[in-house]
Amino acid sequence: MTRITDASTDRVMSLESINQKVVQFEYAVRGAQAIRAEQLRKQLVEGPNDLPFKEIVSCNIGNPQQLKQLPITFYRQVSALCEYPDLMNAANLPVTSKIFAKDAIERAKELLTAMGGSTGAYTHSQGIPLVRQRVAEFIEKRDGFPSDPDSIFLTAGASPGVQMVLQTLISSDDVGIMIPIPQYPLYTASISLYGGNAVPYYLDESKDWGLTLEELTRSIKDGRSKNYQVRALCVINPGNPTGQCLPIDSMRQIIEFCHRENVVLMADEVYQTNIYKPEELPFHSFKKVLKSMGSKYESVELFSFHSVSKGTIGECGRRGGYFECTGIDSSVKEMLYKIASVSLCPPVQGQLMVEHMVHPPKSDGDSYALYKKENLAIYDSLRRRAEKLASAFNSLEGVTCNSAQGAMYLFPRIRLSAKAVQAAMDADQAPDAFYSMALLNTTGVCVVPGSGFGQVDGTYHFRSTFLPPEELMDQFIGNIKAFHNEFMKKYA
Amino acid sequence: MTRITDASTDRVMSLESINQKVVQFEYAVRGAQAIRAEQLRKQLVEGPNDLPFKEIVSCNIGNPQQLKQLPITFYRQVSALCEYPDLMNAANLPVTSKIFAKDAIERAKELLTAMGGSTGAYTHSQGIPLVRQRVAEFIEKRDGFPSDPDSIFLTAGASPGVQMVLQTLISSDDVGIMIPIPQYPLYTASISLYGGNAVPYYLDESKDWGLTLEELTRSIKDGRSKNYQVRALCVINPGNPTGQCLPIDSMRQIIEFCHRENVVLMADEVYQTNIYKPEELPFHSFKKVLKSMGSKYESVELFSFHSVSKGTIGECGRRGGYFECTGIDSSVKEMLYKIASVSLCPPVQGQLMVEHMVHPPKSDGDSYALYKKENLAIYDSLRRRAEKLASAFNSLEGVTCNSAQGAMYLFPRIRLSAKAVQAAMDADQAPDAFYSMALLNTTGVCVVPGSGFGQVDGTYHFRSTFLPPEELMDQFIGNIKAFHNEFMKKYA
Repeated sequence: MTRITDASTDRVMSLESINQKVVQFEYAVRGAQAIRAEQLRKQLVEGPNDLPFKEIVSCNIGNPQQLKQLPITFYRQVSALCEYPDLMNAANLPVTSKIFAKDAIERAKELLTAMGGSTGAYTHSQGIPLVRQRVAEFIEKRDGFPSDPDSIFLTAGASPGVQMVLQTLISSDDVGIMIPIPQYPLYTASISLYGGNAVPYYLDESKDWGLTLEELTRSIKDGRSKNYQVRALCVINPGNPTGQCLPIDSMRQIIEFCHRENVVLMADEVYQTNIYKPEELPFHSFKKVLKSMGSKYESVELFSFHSVSKGTIGECGRRGGYFECTGIDSSVKEMLYKIASVSLCPPVQGQLMVEHMVHPPKSDGDSYALYKKENLAIYDSLRRRAEKLASAFNSLEGVTCNSAQGAMYLFPRIRLSAKAVQAAMDADQAPDAFYSMALLNTTGVCVVPGSGFGQVDGTYHFRSTFLPPEELMDQFIGNIKAFHNEFMKKYA
Repeated sequence: MTRITDASTDRVMSLESINQKVVQFEYAVRGAQAIRAEQLRKQLVEGPNDLPFKEIVSCNIGNPQQLKQLPITFYRQVSALCEYPDLMNAANLPVTSKIFAKDAIERAKELLTAMGGSTGAYTHSQGIPLVRQRVAEFIEKRDGFPSDPDSIFLTAGASPGVQMVLQTLISSDDVGIMIPIPQYPLYTASISLYGGNAVPYYLDESKDWGLTLEELTRSIKDGRSKNYQVRALCVINPGNPTGQCLPIDSMRQIIEFCHRENVVLMADEVYQTNIYKPEELPFHSFKKVLKSMGSKYESVELFSFHSVSKGTIGECGRRGGYFECTGIDSSVKEMLYKIASVSLCPPVQGQLMVEHMVHPPKSDGDSYALYKKENLAIYDSLRRRAEKLASAFNSLEGVTCNSAQGAMYLFPRIRLSAKAVQAAMDADQAPDAFYSMALLNTTGVCVVPGSGFGQVDGTYHFRSTFLPPEELMDQFIGNIKAFHNEFMKKYA
């Protein structure tokens, strides 16, 4: 009955004993840089003058409202009314109708009715039926093809949807999932966590991070040569971290590839409204392109993901999103429902924000003019900041950066000297992690090293959002330039 | 290149090809009964007079606000203010301060500051630091022992926390996790999904669903005889579906057992304020009991789960909860952080509700009197309904039902005739599923068959919440009685 009380020696849970898939996966967006940034943030609270900068600028994550992007007024008015419906009772309405727009009040009432009167109840595990219906209407209008509310799953952001599908796809340790390199690390992390194998295909930096059929073919052959059952192809469009927008021909090739090779297509389309060259490279959904290719391709299995965290909405904290199933067997949808039901339901405020995203204020409503103005101001500012930051990166010694056709990120390539690479090796860090950590410690700017997304061997990158507020852009860029010049000089 | 266009024949994803763990797990709370109830609900919309009842009464799930429980005013005022901070700007405040309590406005301002100004940003992946600090203060006050905010993880309800820990614990297919029978099916579903093995221990219906050391010992021996590495013991206290509250002696035995057998203790304490015999059977947290047993037990590894969905709060739709790690190695906590970070952060409105739960209005604030009144009214009503429904069940032919010492459920035992059992077998249903489905089809009352929770072989039960509104209780009970008498007569 006696036992050693030094717990560390015989704990049930240790790094050696727990699920090794949990130990091994990596998620760089909230990795070493983010953890260090958190420490520095605490240090700045304790001693605001102790560091060579006054604040942490979190460019490691697409989190617009953390960097002072304002929410859309209509959305928040509806949220507040749904949270506290007493604002709309007979006693308060004469007062509150001076603050809240008429169409916001109508929308709140409609949504409250649709969810049985309260945001505090669990909803249907796939999401409130009215919200799914609105999503289906949005998709139909966007694409010109029918959409079925029962094939739509509301989720807590896009990530849990991606995870749910991967968990279902990965039936054994020989399943392969094709992913772009560079990729958003949700994919490598989840594939690893569920015990599958990432099968990388490379985006071509010299061609604006484009994707070729030859590379897809090389990739799947490579996966199969390792005896993987390659079951799915993940495409992020617009790209993350790379910001490219796929031309429609490229999308058709991808669909033909999925059809020919019999792989499921997972289309991460969370940046579908972050499109900065809409004339040249407008957004097309994979659903639309697939449906427009005719009945030959009907058998292609497609999951399309969307989120309220991106676009001009940027409501990350709410955790709202959805995925649509196209060509998915109904028995498989039942299994997805079962997984969803164990978590009971997606957060209601996330579901409501999905409703607002797909069903913004109508043009004859009180809120429309302000909505239009706010939306456009955010969009235009994102586009300006994207250009400005790309041009700043391109002005740096040894740095080249494709412009962002879409999304919220730039992924500049940095050419580091042999001396810098050696210093990184001495510090037991990847060279771009070494660079990014020095940037953070010197300027407070937190970015994610390219090694966290994958890159061609021997190349170095980092991902930075272009979300710092416009009025701080010059200072932000100035700090990065000063650091970069210093760093290059030090390791010349 | 040609392929069969009948997709069903060669889909990548079919019931046969996908992850069989996904196919096999069961989650009864949203299973066949809930799906049928949804169909009937739709039918009632189309033809309100087509069925022998006018509405579906969802007693399958602890979802108080769906059954018209009102939210606590203070909580919702703070939520609305956080959603739309313009309510507190200089122009609006003169008006809104007539509607919103002063302490609600102060709280909203404090919370907005703590999260950087907006509910729309991702927070720290473990949750907003201030909220975790408040949780730690709450635990310290409740238990009289220190609590560390860095050992607290905010989650989207208790369920994802339980899943995160199970996923980490289950390192291979020979890991065993001890669970009570009957149990809340989150446990069997998740253990199965992560590829572990449920090791059942039985609660004793004849002793108010009590738990004995003998039974725990039998259970772990049984698990080990199957060559399982038994790694954890899950306890639900107060019990779900059984409603029992553990006496402190029993809790000490459980802790000694975990210590002796070297298993992690997972304490599901989401019903900690749903205590209906507070003098006889007050709630004690496992953390407090463990810490009060002295340094010998310091090495016990404990996870304690809590939620905003239950208690008198019932804010299920928000998806808020937390777990506290006690005696968990810091490297393991880092891995839990990594899992949390892939989902970016728990829903902000869920986090805020956790703050309110652990830090209700202060006694000198404007909101206190109303808060007290609302809280007590909900609590008293729950207690009355628990008694009333238990006594109604006990009045039925062949039914016995332990009273609810805690939680939100009754789990009556029904003795079914051989003829009824035969009819169920002919319908290819478990006898209690057959009974529950007949109840649903006849009365619109949706309960969950005992087979979904596990029960001693040859016994039949169902779980019903006691959440229908008090003013409808007599009618609700009358409908169940009429159905039951009819059913018993039919299968006599």
